[in-house]
Amino acid sequence: MKPGSGTLKIALLAVSIAAALATGQVSAKSKDADKPAPSPQEILDAAPAGTWRDIPADDLVVMTLADGSEVIYQLVPDFAPVHVANIRQLVRSGYFNGAVILRVQDDYVVQWGRPDEDKTVAEGIAKHPPAEYDFPNRGIRFNELPWHDAYAKHTGLIKSWPAATDGRSDWLVHCYGMIGVARDVSPDTGDSTQLYTVIGHAPRHLDRNLAVVGRIIKGMDTLAARPRGTGDLGFYKTDAERTKIVSAKMASDLGADAPAWQIVDSDTPTFNTWLKARANRTGAFFVRPAGALDICNALPPVRKRP
Amino acid sequence: MKPGSGTLKIALLAVSIAAALATGQVSAKSKDADKPAPSPQEILDAAPAGTWRDIPADDLVVMTLADGSEVIYQLVPDFAPVHVANIRQLVRSGYFNGAVILRVQDDYVVQWGRPDEDKTVAEGIAKHPPAEYDFPNRGIRFNELPWHDAYAKHTGLIKSWPAATDGRSDWLVHCYGMIGVARDVSPDTGDSTQLYTVIGHAPRHLDRNLAVVGRIIKGMDTLAARPRGTGDLGFYKTDAERTKIVSAKMASDLGADAPAWQIVDSDTPTFNTWLKARANRTGAFFVRPAGALDICNALPPVRKRP
Repeated sequence: MKPGSGTLKIALLAVSIAAALATGQVSAKSKDADKPAPSPQEILDAAPAGTWRDIPADDLVVMTLADGSEVIYQLVPDFAPVHVANIRQLVRSGYFNGAVILRVQDDYVVQWGRPDEDKTVAEGIAKHPPAEYDFPNRGIRFNELPWHDAYAKHTGLIKSWPAATDGRSDWLVHCYGMIGVARDVSPDTGDSTQLYTVIGHAPRHLDRNLAVVGRIIKGMDTLAARPRGTGDLGFYKTDAERTKIVSAKMASDLGADAPAWQIVDSDTPTFNTWLKARANRTGAFFVRPAGALDICNALPPVRKRP
Repeated sequence: MKPGSGTLKIALLAVSIAAALATGQVSAKSKDADKPAPSPQEILDAAPAGTWRDIPADDLVVMTLADGSEVIYQLVPDFAPVHVANIRQLVRSGYFNGAVILRVQDDYVVQWGRPDEDKTVAEGIAKHPPAEYDFPNRGIRFNELPWHDAYAKHTGLIKSWPAATDGRSDWLVHCYGMIGVARDVSPDTGDSTQLYTVIGHAPRHLDRNLAVVGRIIKGMDTLAARPRGTGDLGFYKTDAERTKIVSAKMASDLGADAPAWQIVDSDTPTFNTWLKARANRTGAFFVRPAGALDICNALPPVRKRP
């Protein structure tokens, strides 16, 4: 094999299989029939109406960074109502306009807000929110994954969010791209003025220790690629290093310019079919399908509304 | 709480606890005694002789990138002898001098080697290495983690490498920073001319489907922060986007300039104490210690030899 063998070399990793199937480069045989097993992407492409559901505009925050890149994140009021109310209030009051990326710690988190020396006042928020880290089981459908997890008895999806439960309480888990609220030592100090998102292997020990309030829908590629801070815990040492957040707005305030996004509903048959295909990748490339998925490798896909 | 509350705000996330304990900012009480439970870092700091072992210089590759940053990786001849022999040969023949970073796919991999249009010949290597993806159990000590895993019956450390076993075979797992060999569809096409490292949540479905040949010891911060490629699968589209690898050398060929690194021996009592402390983080910040560790959150620390 030459290093420049091109198309097939490109096909070396998992996601390539879907693309390869789509272009007919490799064919995967199902056990039962002489036709290729559908890839995760093909399953999504053939999804019936109702598989994708709209994300409410009032759950979407649109940030524009100083380099022109756009970051959009989704809030989860079902799991952190007080923290989410704070974020909406902070966004609408303009608190995050002119805030910055404070910290990038490799294999851990990107954190944004206002630096210590900034004295901008956060108005109208709950200064001491409750510890919204988990919730007594409320009978919301839990689409459980059939595989083991190191940290929780049960993992699965609740309304398309990665979650865990011990039967009594449910909580959201710290997967790549999930957003949490920074706090001081006391649990009632996470007022949402500083937020972080996960950029490495899931730091699941943070589950039930911080409030998870949402996930990045667009722009992880730009957040995760920021230079790592050289201060303690990846904090930037100087203002020059901190990328400015030019503006943060609720999508619901943007009128005709509001971005519209959709997510796969985790309570649909298509999602379950997608999960199984993703756990058992077929195609000529794979020697041994995994037969399993970690909760953080089972995150429902998102897309712009077609 | 003001956003600028400073030191304590900085303490919001897990690794801060070790630092805080070290500086006496918070005190964690053990259940049995009126003294703080030692933090993972304190356990390492108090480690007896023999806890840290030297990494052989002939297992270390030192790469210098065009921007001046240094990346050092460790090879694992015990688990991929033919692939590792190829890498040593490629490094010594100068094959990687002038190679480039070809691909950065967010939450997945950074891949390097020579691009398609480059016709540099790789000399003296095994062109069709065996599929060194797992090995029949050889009786090497497996320090098993007591927690569940989605993908494997048992996970643990073998000679300080993150691994899994089903009792019959052992294999290395795709954690953050681990290095694998890119290949074409056929398993005998991974000749080590292109390598990748994991930069997101562990893509464990790749386990036993690709040869794991090592791990990044230094420089993940610079690799993981590269701009994501905008081509399919994160490949860069133009040569201008590709960071050049100015040189790649075996540490064993560098004489007095050779970097010297050490890793915590996973077969020592200190490592097990460190694991337990890491799984059960104490200190005022943590409301609820996880009581568990995923294999990819249990990677033995490395350091420069003091």
